[in-house]
Amino acid sequence: MQTPWEHRYANRLKNMGSSVIRELLKFTESPDIISFAGGLPAPDVFPVEEFAEACNKVLKEQGPSALQYGTTDGYLPLREMIARHSLRYGINITPDNVMITSGSQQALDLLGRIFINRGDRILVEAPTYLGALQAWNAYGAEYVPVPSDKNGMITDALEEALRYGPKFIYVLPNFQNPTGVTIPLERRMQLIELADRYGVPIVEDDPYGQLRYEGEHLPSVVVLDDHYRGNSHTTYHGNVIYLSTFSKILAPGLRLAWVVAPPEVIRKMVMAKQGADLHTATFNQYVAYEVGKGGFLDRHILKIRRVYRERRDVMLGALDSYFPAGTDWTHPEGGLFLWGTIQEHLNSTDVLKLAIERKVAFVPGESFFPLGGGKNTMRLNFSNASPENIREGIFRLGKLLQELGESDKPKMAGSTLPAVVA
Amino acid sequence: MQTPWEHRYANRLKNMGSSVIRELLKFTESPDIISFAGGLPAPDVFPVEEFAEACNKVLKEQGPSALQYGTTDGYLPLREMIARHSLRYGINITPDNVMITSGSQQALDLLGRIFINRGDRILVEAPTYLGALQAWNAYGAEYVPVPSDKNGMITDALEEALRYGPKFIYVLPNFQNPTGVTIPLERRMQLIELADRYGVPIVEDDPYGQLRYEGEHLPSVVVLDDHYRGNSHTTYHGNVIYLSTFSKILAPGLRLAWVVAPPEVIRKMVMAKQGADLHTATFNQYVAYEVGKGGFLDRHILKIRRVYRERRDVMLGALDSYFPAGTDWTHPEGGLFLWGTIQEHLNSTDVLKLAIERKVAFVPGESFFPLGGGKNTMRLNFSNASPENIREGIFRLGKLLQELGESDKPKMAGSTLPAVVA
Repeated sequence: MQTPWEHRYANRLKNMGSSVIRELLKFTESPDIISFAGGLPAPDVFPVEEFAEACNKVLKEQGPSALQYGTTDGYLPLREMIARHSLRYGINITPDNVMITSGSQQALDLLGRIFINRGDRILVEAPTYLGALQAWNAYGAEYVPVPSDKNGMITDALEEALRYGPKFIYVLPNFQNPTGVTIPLERRMQLIELADRYGVPIVEDDPYGQLRYEGEHLPSVVVLDDHYRGNSHTTYHGNVIYLSTFSKILAPGLRLAWVVAPPEVIRKMVMAKQGADLHTATFNQYVAYEVGKGGFLDRHILKIRRVYRERRDVMLGALDSYFPAGTDWTHPEGGLFLWGTIQEHLNSTDVLKLAIERKVAFVPGESFFPLGGGKNTMRLNFSNASPENIREGIFRLGKLLQELGESDKPKMAGSTLPAVVA
Repeated sequence: MQTPWEHRYANRLKNMGSSVIRELLKFTESPDIISFAGGLPAPDVFPVEEFAEACNKVLKEQGPSALQYGTTDGYLPLREMIARHSLRYGINITPDNVMITSGSQQALDLLGRIFINRGDRILVEAPTYLGALQAWNAYGAEYVPVPSDKNGMITDALEEALRYGPKFIYVLPNFQNPTGVTIPLERRMQLIELADRYGVPIVEDDPYGQLRYEGEHLPSVVVLDDHYRGNSHTTYHGNVIYLSTFSKILAPGLRLAWVVAPPEVIRKMVMAKQGADLHTATFNQYVAYEVGKGGFLDRHILKIRRVYRERRDVMLGALDSYFPAGTDWTHPEGGLFLWGTIQEHLNSTDVLKLAIERKVAFVPGESFFPLGGGKNTMRLNFSNASPENIREGIFRLGKLLQELGESDKPKMAGSTLPAVVA
């Protein structure tokens, strides 16, 4: 009467290690830790009152249909609202280009489901978003990483990578997770031309594009691709699948995101979603539509930008003040993250263990490289902690890095390695 | 500058045909059709006011955390409530046995993800739930069907089927979808013993078990398995993975369901869910907990039973009155569906086309057989239409079947087939 579950699991489970971020989130739950580890929005900017009003209105006026099963592609008025909202960012689409997903994580999963067979290659930036790797590992994806610099993916290295025949190219052009960097216009154009020449689709993940704190908005890859093709339709039929989400501009606890893609891709994703979870919660879609319509989204985004811009500036200032020589960091023009490089001889995973003892946390950069690397890098989130805590947390981290930098030199000097090896 | 999307899709998409039910749901949206096709709960029993109160309370008292990211396994107070609620049905578990999913469809998908490699066999009842086949087709499952009668899966045929080495056994013991039949105690015991002997886990799908309109509640397979093993733990460690949902006892538009399983299976499912959608909507879990706690679920289930029992009785009465000779149907003791068998020479898909012209719809039974069969069967839903519409719809269907039965005889007689073939 044994139930030896382990041996029954399909092999693909081996590729599903619990994510470093999720493990670290455990620490953020402890109120005495200052955490720069998660990717959590600031709860102070959630429009709680507007949600309460919207819930009441939806339940009063449309209760039975808001609580009933819905369609797999999503609530049409919400898809229409997304099409209108996208137009403000130059994305010229119709609701036929839009599908609602249960968070962007589901969009990544569905992409894996429809495009990836075991052993297929995906071209990614290195470093790249961990959740995407996690989604696609389950389908047996392999990765062709293209290195990044302070202008994102180095598109001069793209052509060589395309010769590996990837199934698609995955990029986060705006305020990338994890690095915070933005791909400039010229590289975006180069990306589109090369993808077109090699016949490889682009997946553009853009959770933060609307959260810009300085500089001019850059057209999305999907917009540039549409122009490149000289598309005269109102419905988009190009080479890009664009992902965005309500998690950062309304609230992540709703699990509402969307995909923009050619209708023939949307149809395949809808079929895949039917098997995955039938449809995204009807009630949440009605409520998000009710909250978001009538210009609220635009006003609310201005508020979020103000709050996060301040926090970014506080973090940049604190890094200037407290981080020791030999460290460096990016200057994100928007989004939720910046990327630190610490002294070359340090390993940021080891540093994290010590940092947690001092009640401050971050994500070691190594986790974001599909094929390894970045041992002396770290991702720092600035959206969730208060300005005071950001200052204090960066102070603690800076002090730790200073001490490690100093203590390391005598240790190296007193090393037991024979001189001939050193 | 072509974007030939089609040739890029992974092969598994070929197995993802859009479900017949979803296609038919299009008809149910037309207000002049009386539809017995969907599996929709009656919107009149949704506790709309209780939802409005709960939304207000949750947003007022816990707004920031209810709108924030949550944990993948689910909101602990909700998992505790499910453990307590399960105990009323004899399921003796702890929250470590419980995981929240985005509808039961996601639970089926995650089971596919962790257990099924291409070509693996799944033992199912024939007919069985279409959504399960749809979820597992995506993972390349093959099926070993075990025939059913009016007491569900014929367990005497089970042992032979087990020799095909299935990955797991999938059963819906209570008021099965699509047939409405219930597996009696003796067959449940036989199922547990055989599964144990062959070392094959059981997946027990129980969306309707609490909606019983007559007869005594039968212990779930998970409960019987626990007793069979003489388990003295409070945490369940047996051979059964049990699925249930809030879709039928609160509202499907929340997409909230749960899995009960040994902790080692829950852990694997949580890892799979991380890649699939990170977690189920936090807000919905808080609201469901707020609505469901304090005994409301038990009271509300009594109300749903009253409403659905009446509708079932109206449908059974109308079938007695209007269905012609040569037809037969099941007498479900609960749930949402009954199963009709029409005249042997008729094909229910052809009948459906004519029925839609007469503004009445059902699901042809053939769709529920993984390897074909059941051409003269149909699934009839009695939860969604009003009693008046049930009577009228069954009248129309009965009249159609009567006409088809009669018109068919002269047609056969006047057939152009040579007499020697006839």
